[in-house]
Amino acid sequence: MSILDVEAFPIEVQEARLQINRQLDQYTRFDTDNVKDSCPEQLQEAIRYSLLSDGKRLRPLLVLAAAHVCGGDMQDAMGAACAVEMIHTYSLIHDDLPAMDDDDLRRGQPTCHVQFDEATAILAGDALLTMAFEVMARDTPQPVAAHCCQLLATAAGPTRLVGGQVEDLAAQFTEPNLTHLQRIHSRKTGALLTVALELGGVISGGTAQMLKSLQQYGNDIGLAFQIVDDLLDLRGEEVKIGKRTGKDSEHGKLTYPLVMGSQDSEQLARDKVDSAISALQVFGPAADPLVLFANFVVNRTR
Amino acid sequence: MSILDVEAFPIEVQEARLQINRQLDQYTRFDTDNVKDSCPEQLQEAIRYSLLSDGKRLRPLLVLAAAHVCGGDMQDAMGAACAVEMIHTYSLIHDDLPAMDDDDLRRGQPTCHVQFDEATAILAGDALLTMAFEVMARDTPQPVAAHCCQLLATAAGPTRLVGGQVEDLAAQFTEPNLTHLQRIHSRKTGALLTVALELGGVISGGTAQMLKSLQQYGNDIGLAFQIVDDLLDLRGEEVKIGKRTGKDSEHGKLTYPLVMGSQDSEQLARDKVDSAISALQVFGPAADPLVLFANFVVNRTR
Repeated sequence: MSILDVEAFPIEVQEARLQINRQLDQYTRFDTDNVKDSCPEQLQEAIRYSLLSDGKRLRPLLVLAAAHVCGGDMQDAMGAACAVEMIHTYSLIHDDLPAMDDDDLRRGQPTCHVQFDEATAILAGDALLTMAFEVMARDTPQPVAAHCCQLLATAAGPTRLVGGQVEDLAAQFTEPNLTHLQRIHSRKTGALLTVALELGGVISGGTAQMLKSLQQYGNDIGLAFQIVDDLLDLRGEEVKIGKRTGKDSEHGKLTYPLVMGSQDSEQLARDKVDSAISALQVFGPAADPLVLFANFVVNRTR
Repeated sequence: MSILDVEAFPIEVQEARLQINRQLDQYTRFDTDNVKDSCPEQLQEAIRYSLLSDGKRLRPLLVLAAAHVCGGDMQDAMGAACAVEMIHTYSLIHDDLPAMDDDDLRRGQPTCHVQFDEATAILAGDALLTMAFEVMARDTPQPVAAHCCQLLATAAGPTRLVGGQVEDLAAQFTEPNLTHLQRIHSRKTGALLTVALELGGVISGGTAQMLKSLQQYGNDIGLAFQIVDDLLDLRGEEVKIGKRTGKDSEHGKLTYPLVMGSQDSEQLARDKVDSAISALQVFGPAADPLVLFANFVVNRTR
């Protein structure tokens, strides 16, 4: 186990991760005495199977860490943190579908459509995408709740997250091109990481300078994150990563190692992490968890 | 053409419908000089193909009519009206997928996955679902924007719209049972019709009594709407309806004619419309468009 594996996060980060898991569990209980207001059992199972599986919770942790460095109460950002994780999980469920990346392993377990069926997986993804906005609208401090819904929707929408997936599918077997690759990944991975930080900052009333620093940090670690993802896929330790490896090259996917070679890719990831950490200077020692995440992103083994 | 076909709506309703269509067109242009912020072409085409097709626009018209009877400015409710239509369109795209109802005709044209492909249809649905919340959060008067996002998310979520689709799929070839059937349809059709009215009322600052009347009206026309849908499917005038007919019985679907016979179904629909119209008394003549919609629902030919 690498020293930067999730399990080796400092105690306060571990505690935040547990809190996120507890809150996600609460949000998917649908406790009611009224059958009319209940969630169909199979749908609830599929939602919980995917959402409560062993995820790193990196995105919700970024929401909480950003809220913290901007001087706010992390609890105020817990709804937003869970909303971002719901969006992330929905996008994994849909991306794994047979019509898309056709994956059968995710977070160390069969993908949602393999465990249940395709219709249930599509609907569980739809449900999580919808619930993200319910949670955000209801459990975010009201003066910024609508603005936060808008930020999340823009990041998850057709010009960002969904658009990135469309371009990623279309880019299979095309000429390796760095500009194109960077645009895909700034959408597919970067948009949600960056908005996670922005949401934490907005909820804590961060200044324009703070939000700008968080955005720079988010752009940099988003890129580093994707490069490392590509390298992990290439190296292929399925058990550790919890999803099938070697699939990218098999599917002719545009990846960083393909475009610029493994060594230069690794160097670029390290440069981006350095740049991300520089962007945090404005916050002083309060940014320590964000420094840790940046190092985690580039040194992670899954 | 029946006197209650869409084309025979009074001039002010026709005008509102045109305004809705214009606004939906605007929302899906994604005009930008920056390729980074653009929407991938094929995704935009699929979104516009499905959203701008020849829909009745009943749900957004209900939002505007409810805003009107509660004394507000209809323009304030235009964002919410379009958001509801986006949710409706996304749910049609996903319901039509091969893994779900497997339909090839919708609104008189090939379904989204037939016209494009399955991946594009899934992602176009995801995009529309996400955009609904962007539009609602940004273009609804800010004091009620977050509350409106929450209402829409609850209505579209796993205990309502998505839950209804899960139950509808699961109910194929089960014993005909009226309680079960009513629960499915109060979720699958009723939830979105009812929240359309509620949103209009909330945006216009409607009183608790007004909102209650709108809810009663919504529940009643929701049920009537579904019964008539079932009857139209049975009668099978594909060209008029714009989707395949006879599919319900073919797929062993639980329908009103199956559970209680065509004649009793028709009577129930008429009773519900009468009840819906009674619920509007509190509003006086301002409710005329809602009376018209109620009659349209039961007399429509598509």
